[in-house]
Amino acid sequence: MKLQEIGEFGLINRLAAGFEEHTGVIKGVGDDAAVLDFGDRWLLFTTDSMVEGVHFRLDYAAPEDIGYKALAVNISDIAAMGGRPSYAVVTVGLPDRLAVEEAEALYDGIREAARDYGVGVVGGDTTAAPVLVLNVALLGEAAPGRVRYRSGAQPEDIVCTTGSLGGAAAGLFLLQNNDFPCPDPLRNFLLRKHRRPEPRVESGFMLAGIPEVHALIDVSDGLASEVHHIADASGVGCQIFRAAVPVEPAAELVGRRAGLDPVDWALYGGEDYELVFTVAPEAVGRVAHALGGIGVGCRPVGKVVADKGVRLVLPDGSLTELTRAGYEHFITGSG
Amino acid sequence: MKLQEIGEFGLINRLAAGFEEHTGVIKGVGDDAAVLDFGDRWLLFTTDSMVEGVHFRLDYAAPEDIGYKALAVNISDIAAMGGRPSYAVVTVGLPDRLAVEEAEALYDGIREAARDYGVGVVGGDTTAAPVLVLNVALLGEAAPGRVRYRSGAQPEDIVCTTGSLGGAAAGLFLLQNNDFPCPDPLRNFLLRKHRRPEPRVESGFMLAGIPEVHALIDVSDGLASEVHHIADASGVGCQIFRAAVPVEPAAELVGRRAGLDPVDWALYGGEDYELVFTVAPEAVGRVAHALGGIGVGCRPVGKVVADKGVRLVLPDGSLTELTRAGYEHFITGSG
Repeated sequence: MKLQEIGEFGLINRLAAGFEEHTGVIKGVGDDAAVLDFGDRWLLFTTDSMVEGVHFRLDYAAPEDIGYKALAVNISDIAAMGGRPSYAVVTVGLPDRLAVEEAEALYDGIREAARDYGVGVVGGDTTAAPVLVLNVALLGEAAPGRVRYRSGAQPEDIVCTTGSLGGAAAGLFLLQNNDFPCPDPLRNFLLRKHRRPEPRVESGFMLAGIPEVHALIDVSDGLASEVHHIADASGVGCQIFRAAVPVEPAAELVGRRAGLDPVDWALYGGEDYELVFTVAPEAVGRVAHALGGIGVGCRPVGKVVADKGVRLVLPDGSLTELTRAGYEHFITGSG
Repeated sequence: MKLQEIGEFGLINRLAAGFEEHTGVIKGVGDDAAVLDFGDRWLLFTTDSMVEGVHFRLDYAAPEDIGYKALAVNISDIAAMGGRPSYAVVTVGLPDRLAVEEAEALYDGIREAARDYGVGVVGGDTTAAPVLVLNVALLGEAAPGRVRYRSGAQPEDIVCTTGSLGGAAAGLFLLQNNDFPCPDPLRNFLLRKHRRPEPRVESGFMLAGIPEVHALIDVSDGLASEVHHIADASGVGCQIFRAAVPVEPAAELVGRRAGLDPVDWALYGGEDYELVFTVAPEAVGRVAHALGGIGVGCRPVGKVVADKGVRLVLPDGSLTELTRAGYEHFITGSG
């Protein structure tokens, strides 16, 4: 059987199935990070890789940006558990054609992200490779019990995001359509959304401290895909209100001008690294107030229902199935 | 400047230079694993990757072996600090041409190594890639203070290994010279040395508990390269006695028959994953006794001297410079 036939998530499920349970593992494979019991604190452990031609192109992003993003997407995985990142090890596979200066710029980007988020880069490995490959493994910490999983969603919960979506996809669109007319400030803003994700560490930490926040995940593959993850892991269904999807205003401008529906970018584009969470209805106001206090939005986009299935509620009230359509490597081939 | 001009170790040194110090880091970049202060225990953190065409070839090793080795080489890095491995995350980049069954066999090998060494695989990432890429990040643990670095060697120390060397290189030679006449049991033994390293976890743990053991490293790139690492990090010199280099007997047989010097395999071949350590002369007997108790050898191969430089002492007593000549990715291109 070929890899394309089962897709990335199918493969992960097959492969993860066989790992044995192990002492001290509170949560193993299957969430944004593993959770390990270290007594007076819980350790979070995650890894994520970026492969040239699959996750990025060197003509779309500078080496500094690629290095920055490689660490940032891992930090977002720790944020998606409610933890704070601490230590990282970084492996870089470098093709011969790369200049030493480019390799150094890559590490400059890693260093910048480490500084921005207080991460200690404590080790790594450098090797030759046919294309540029970055792999980061990141530790994080949380107080015992103060983490949130994908699997905690409860019927009646409100589904919210910490901010607007679709900006990263709009940035990618501008890179792929270099001659698309767009004022420089708008272009630069959206390119930055694509190249320099800002993981929501403080938001995740705050949300994990609110008992009524039941499920938490970050937007790496797109809102639709993340809501599916929550629904699958929690054994519930979700309804997402199309009109409530918080589209990044700059993305909306570009999308409309391009004759594209910017809500699709928000639902399927991914790489926005906002958080998606579910919260008991009576606590939504409190959560919005808390997030507002650190300058972060709280956008209700849907609700959790007992019936399984993820549905999009259209403005006329009708329901349609919301497909995952997130970015799956083995199905789309390259993005 | 091109990557080939400065080599892997040169690049690592340049890149590692700029990482800032961070709270709780007892040892950062520069040893086999980082050491992190977690109060009543110290955490070890390491990462290592294997890239198809650079570190392995699919016609030389089955996917199970590649998976096994990817975890084993990281376990060896933890052993080289004196720690015990605990939790791993694994990233696999899979080329389209790979069958699902091959990907599963790869994970079977990872699972087998995890079982053999009591490691919990708690997470990972799967992605598309142009060639097969495996990256493992591994945590380990040690009691506070009970670790050993490359940098601890003291003049007068005896340099020892935990076993014979050159077996993995002889196995690779047989793979590269498939029609070389060799009895099956010998061939299988040496191929296994190449494909299924056996990291010396218990030996490393025991050695780190003996105060007179001053420096510790594992043989990934070859005895010569590891001794250079110890000498550089410790600010000392080393003399290695050529006649004392413990060549794996099976490798000796094959080497002689092939008209090659098997001592070169021991010095420069690498991938044996034995430990190299330095110990105060008065404690060598005690260490040998302790290692013997767990069925592991203790082979004195040289001594530490105050004068910098690493030299090979020939049987006639003359000295010659011992070059690193370990495996450096950007210089040799592919191995």
